[in-house]
Amino acid sequence: MRNLKIYIAYDGSCYHGWQRQENNITVQQVIEDTLLRILGERVTAHGCSRTDAGVHAREFCMTVRTDNPIPCPGLVRAMNGQLPDDIAVKSCEDAPEDFHARFSSKGKEYVYIINTAPVRDVFANRHALHYPHPLDVPRLDAAAKLYVGERDLAAFCRAESLAQHKTTVRTVYSAGMERCGDRVTFTVSGSGFLHHTVRIMVGTLLWINEGKISEDNITKAFAAGDRELLGVTAPPDGLYLNKVLY
Amino acid sequence: MRNLKIYIAYDGSCYHGWQRQENNITVQQVIEDTLLRILGERVTAHGCSRTDAGVHAREFCMTVRTDNPIPCPGLVRAMNGQLPDDIAVKSCEDAPEDFHARFSSKGKEYVYIINTAPVRDVFANRHALHYPHPLDVPRLDAAAKLYVGERDLAAFCRAESLAQHKTTVRTVYSAGMERCGDRVTFTVSGSGFLHHTVRIMVGTLLWINEGKISEDNITKAFAAGDRELLGVTAPPDGLYLNKVLY
Repeated sequence: MRNLKIYIAYDGSCYHGWQRQENNITVQQVIEDTLLRILGERVTAHGCSRTDAGVHAREFCMTVRTDNPIPCPGLVRAMNGQLPDDIAVKSCEDAPEDFHARFSSKGKEYVYIINTAPVRDVFANRHALHYPHPLDVPRLDAAAKLYVGERDLAAFCRAESLAQHKTTVRTVYSAGMERCGDRVTFTVSGSGFLHHTVRIMVGTLLWINEGKISEDNITKAFAAGDRELLGVTAPPDGLYLNKVLY
Repeated sequence: MRNLKIYIAYDGSCYHGWQRQENNITVQQVIEDTLLRILGERVTAHGCSRTDAGVHAREFCMTVRTDNPIPCPGLVRAMNGQLPDDIAVKSCEDAPEDFHARFSSKGKEYVYIINTAPVRDVFANRHALHYPHPLDVPRLDAAAKLYVGERDLAAFCRAESLAQHKTTVRTVYSAGMERCGDRVTFTVSGSGFLHHTVRIMVGTLLWINEGKISEDNITKAFAAGDRELLGVTAPPDGLYLNKVLY
């Protein structure tokens, strides 16, 4: 049986995240329904990650098992011909039998985009957080470095989702913030993240920027596992799954 | 009576153009309804141009007459607070009594964005034309220069709209095409354009690129006024009103 490794990109604005749900439209459902029409069989698309509603992906990896002999370039063309404009297949290849989009992953990189221009960018609507305030990027870049290392991320998790994680310890490989004109980008990579982790990391940096909490709260939150020490959960609009590491 | 000169930007994806219509939502309607809530009176927003359904504007100028003493910065803030995310007010100032967004204009600049990457950009969905084919930009840039000058644009007009134009002669100030990576931009400025002119200019360049017609057709079309000599009307998604000249 073939094991197809497929990379897609999607604008998550109109989807309730990746994972199939009972009553909401999700990227997984659209992908699997498209594959049903092309392959003539219902297959499961195993994604590298769940993403939240409204979160985007520049490079999302999924694996699909099938006996269908369709050549990879033909499958890419057929999928791009049938998928809606906000989902695109970037590549497809036959992967080794034991490769799995999620379990083979060594980590992920996310970016979060903040637009600091006084007036919102109507063309980046739902693709960035509009934050028309002074932003002390060097200070927040330094604060972001506190995220790096082997960390207990319990405080950086949506409370309702804590129970679903067997362990809350992850390794954050790198984190930083940089400015390019009005556009500020927070980039973080790590072995894995809990539910809402990156959005809480961003919201915490914004609260530090606003003087509502201090950098010490980050260190304290790692030790105490207390969500209350941190900032708001930033909205999903600015968040992109940028890369999966294998 | 005050004469307010207001610059806005909008993502036209969800609107049936600028001009108020009976049964479709338009940018003018949203602007005037917003101004009604803020000023407490129904005013007319005189736009610099009609734009087609789906066409965008980076800098669209409009004039509004009112006796309301609201300071300009306050009006900008109030409008941005109430407008949907795909329309933004960039600036507002008191203009001389005789200034009119449309009649005072000396011309307009449009850009048309073409994405030539093999796979569509899911984040530029409805903001560019996806054209995953070789594009001979130096050749088309040379062809675009044929548009420049005092021209009878009758052939470059939607047939059903010809009658509404008193004269079809306009002066095209500049035209050209340039590439930046996968992104190709056609830019044209002129004293004015007829209905669909810029989209027909773009479609004509694409047909020249595909060998369906030759550069000579442009010259012949100016002389004969024959729409049949030209290429398709390119879709609205890639078109932006970039600047109004006063």
